[in-house]
Amino acid sequence: MAERIVVVGGGFGGLLAVRGLRRANVEVTLVDRQNFYLFQPLAYQVATGSLSSVEVAVPLRQILRRQRNARVILGEVAGFDLEARHVFVTSLPNGGTLTLDYDTLVVAGGARYSYFGHDDWAPYAPELKSLEGALDLRDRILRAFEAAEVEQDEAARAEWLTFVVVGAGPTGVEMAGQIAELGKDVLHSEYRAMDTRQTRVLLIEATGRVLGAFPPSLSASGERQLRSLGVTPLLETTVVGIDASSVEVETSDGARSRIPARTVIWAAGVTASPLAGLLAAAVGAETDRAGRLTVEPDLTLAGHPEVFALGDMVTVRGLQLHGVAPVAMQQGRHAARSIRGSSRMPFRYRDKGELATIGRSRAVGVVKGTRLSGFVAWLMWLAIHIVYLVGFQNRLLVLTRWTFSYLTRGRGARVIHRT
Amino acid sequence: MAERIVVVGGGFGGLLAVRGLRRANVEVTLVDRQNFYLFQPLAYQVATGSLSSVEVAVPLRQILRRQRNARVILGEVAGFDLEARHVFVTSLPNGGTLTLDYDTLVVAGGARYSYFGHDDWAPYAPELKSLEGALDLRDRILRAFEAAEVEQDEAARAEWLTFVVVGAGPTGVEMAGQIAELGKDVLHSEYRAMDTRQTRVLLIEATGRVLGAFPPSLSASGERQLRSLGVTPLLETTVVGIDASSVEVETSDGARSRIPARTVIWAAGVTASPLAGLLAAAVGAETDRAGRLTVEPDLTLAGHPEVFALGDMVTVRGLQLHGVAPVAMQQGRHAARSIRGSSRMPFRYRDKGELATIGRSRAVGVVKGTRLSGFVAWLMWLAIHIVYLVGFQNRLLVLTRWTFSYLTRGRGARVIHRT
Repeated sequence: MAERIVVVGGGFGGLLAVRGLRRANVEVTLVDRQNFYLFQPLAYQVATGSLSSVEVAVPLRQILRRQRNARVILGEVAGFDLEARHVFVTSLPNGGTLTLDYDTLVVAGGARYSYFGHDDWAPYAPELKSLEGALDLRDRILRAFEAAEVEQDEAARAEWLTFVVVGAGPTGVEMAGQIAELGKDVLHSEYRAMDTRQTRVLLIEATGRVLGAFPPSLSASGERQLRSLGVTPLLETTVVGIDASSVEVETSDGARSRIPARTVIWAAGVTASPLAGLLAAAVGAETDRAGRLTVEPDLTLAGHPEVFALGDMVTVRGLQLHGVAPVAMQQGRHAARSIRGSSRMPFRYRDKGELATIGRSRAVGVVKGTRLSGFVAWLMWLAIHIVYLVGFQNRLLVLTRWTFSYLTRGRGARVIHRT
Repeated sequence: MAERIVVVGGGFGGLLAVRGLRRANVEVTLVDRQNFYLFQPLAYQVATGSLSSVEVAVPLRQILRRQRNARVILGEVAGFDLEARHVFVTSLPNGGTLTLDYDTLVVAGGARYSYFGHDDWAPYAPELKSLEGALDLRDRILRAFEAAEVEQDEAARAEWLTFVVVGAGPTGVEMAGQIAELGKDVLHSEYRAMDTRQTRVLLIEATGRVLGAFPPSLSASGERQLRSLGVTPLLETTVVGIDASSVEVETSDGARSRIPARTVIWAAGVTASPLAGLLAAAVGAETDRAGRLTVEPDLTLAGHPEVFALGDMVTVRGLQLHGVAPVAMQQGRHAARSIRGSSRMPFRYRDKGELATIGRSRAVGVVKGTRLSGFVAWLMWLAIHIVYLVGFQNRLLVLTRWTFSYLTRGRGARVIHRT
C-alpha cells in the first residue's frame, strides 16, 4: 500500500509539499478550511480595488487536478493523535466529521496578525492576511470615501478621509502607499463635493524605522518614497486604543494623543495558527510568545520523524528566519524531498532577497545581495509577483489590470460588495 | 441656474438617462444603493464561477468621472414629495439623511424575482438579480460539490449533486446549462471520491415550454440543447414548497412529488422595485400585481410631465414590452432626449432581437427577425455581450476568461468566499 501523507494547510508551505510529492508513490490528502490557495503578497491589492479576489485566489482542486495521487478535503482540523497517527477533521461541508490516518503528517497552518491581546480592536481594524479580511477592508475604504462625499461637517469629513495603517512591514507600507494613491490620483476626478487629495494616511510603527527587516539605508529610502506619496510615518509610536472613530497612540516618550480616524488597517504583530498549539499539546511541548512551535533542524517534531511542521507557524531550532513566502515554500519543498527520500536532512534557507513596493514606480529591495530602490526595484517586484502567481490565466489577467492601472491611474475592482 | 435632474437607480435605464444628458446644460444627481452598475445579463456567470464579480460590475463614479455635470450619491430613496419636488434619501454612508430638490425626476428602480408570496423560500433559494445573490449562489453551488465529495451515504450524496433551477426564462436556462457543464466537464477531473458527472440539473417551469418569450420553434431547439447538456426540464410544473433538503412540486394534473435537492436557484416571477410603489403612493395611483407602475406613452407619470419612470418597474400605457435590458436602455435614452428637448414624445421600442445562451456552443435567438440556433447564435451572443460590457478593460478581461474557458473547459473564478 502506498504511504499515506496528510498535509494540513494549502498555503505556500503546504501546497509546495503536496506538489513536491506529485511523482512519488504516495497518497496525499490535503486538508484546508478554504477551497483556494491565496497568493497573500497581493491580498492588499484586493483591499485597495486594484485586483479581483479571484485573481489572487486559485481553487486548490484546480491546481491539483492532474496530480492523481492527491485529494483535497475541505474542513477544519480539530486535533491530532500522534501516537495513533490520526488527524481529526471537523466542519466538513456536509456537517460531518472525519478521522484521517497517516504514515507521514505535514502541518503548515501559517500565521495571522496579532492584536497584542486586544482582540476587541479587531472589529475596528480588520487585518489583511485573509481574503475575507481584504474584501472587508475594500468595502470599508471605499465606503469611507462615499461617506466623506455626503458629509457636510468639515471635521467629520476629515475623520472619513483619515486612514491609519498599523505596522510598517511590507504589507503596511504597501497598503499605506496604495491608499495614498487612491486619494491623490485614482479618485480625484470622481468626487464632486470634496477633494480626495485631502486624504491623510498615517503609518504607525513601534520601532524607529519602516521596513525593519530591510537594511537601514533601504528603510530610509522607503520612508522618503512614502513621504513623496503623501504618507505620514509615525515612528516609535504604539497603538494603545482603537474605537469606531479614533485611534489613541503613545510615543516612545510616553505622550498620548488621539487621532480622529474612521478607517484603521491592522498589519502588525504576528501570531501562529492555532494548529501550532494543537501540535504542541499533542507532544507536550510549549509554543513561544507568538504561538509558534519549535521544530528540529529537519523540520520534524522532536521524537516524531514522521511529523513535519513548517512555515510561519514554526521556528526552526538554530535558524533565524523571517515569516515570508519564500521560507514557507522552500520548507514545503524540503519536507516533500525528505518524504520522497525517507531521509531527514536539515533545512537550509537560500535567501534570494526580498522586495517591497510602495506605490507606482516606487519600491525597495535586496536581490541576491544587491540593494535596489525606486523604479528598478518596482519593475523587479512586478516581474517576480507575476511569475509566482499560479496559473497562466491569472498572470494574464493581473498583467492586464496592472497595465491599465499604470496607463490610466485607474483601479478596476472598486466594487462595494456589502453596502 | 441649470435645470436640476435627479435620477434614481444606476441600472440600464437610469445610467443611460444620465449618460444621455452628458452634453446638456443640467445638473444631474444619480442616487443608487450600490456604488456600481451591474451588467446583469452576465451575473449568472459570476454564480457559476466563470467570471469575477468586478468584471460585471463597474463603479458608477468611474463611468461618470468625466461627465462633470453628474454627481453620484450612495443611499436609499425613502420617498418622494412630487408637489414640493423633493426626493428623500436615507442610509447614506455617513448614517445621515438628505433631501434632494429637482426640476425633473427620473426613477428607474428595476425589478427582482418574486417568490409568489413565499418569501420564506428565499433563504433556501437565492435569486440571481443582484451581485450579492450571485456570489451567495456561487458559494452554495461550490460547497454542494465539496459536501458531495466527503459524503459517504449514496442518497445523501445524490441530494448534494441535485440542483433545481426554478423558472425557464433566459436566466434559468443559462444557469441550468452552466451547472450541467460544471458537473460534466469542468469539475470532473478535480474530485476523487465521486463522479461529478452524476450531477442532476432539474429546470422547473410552470408553462409548457422553456424560453417562453421566444418563438415556439426556438423553445423546442432550446429544450433539445438543454437535454443534450444533461439538463432535465420539468414543464407544466410549479413549486409548492422548498426546504433545506428538498423541493416539492406539483404537475398540471395536480400530482405532487418531493425532489431531494440541497441547492435551489430561483429565477422565476418578477416584482418591481419598491420605488414603483412609493411613486404610485405619491400620486395616489395603484401598482399592478407585479408591483409595476403604469406610465404614460411618453414615460412620464399622468399629471406629472416632470417625472419619468422607466425600465422593469413600469408598464407603458398601450405597449407590451418584455423586462429586458434593451427596453430599459432605450427608455433611459428616450427620457434623456425628452429632457434635453423639453418635449414629451411617445416612447417606441426598436426590437433588435433577443438571444439566450444555453452552454458552450449552444444558444437560440432572434436577431432582426432571423431565427438563430446553436453555434451561430452562441457566437452572436458572445459578441453582443462583449460589446455591451462597460469599459475596455472589462471587455478584455472577460474575453480572456471566456477564451480560457473555451480552450480548457475550466472556470477561473471558483472561490468559495464564505466557507
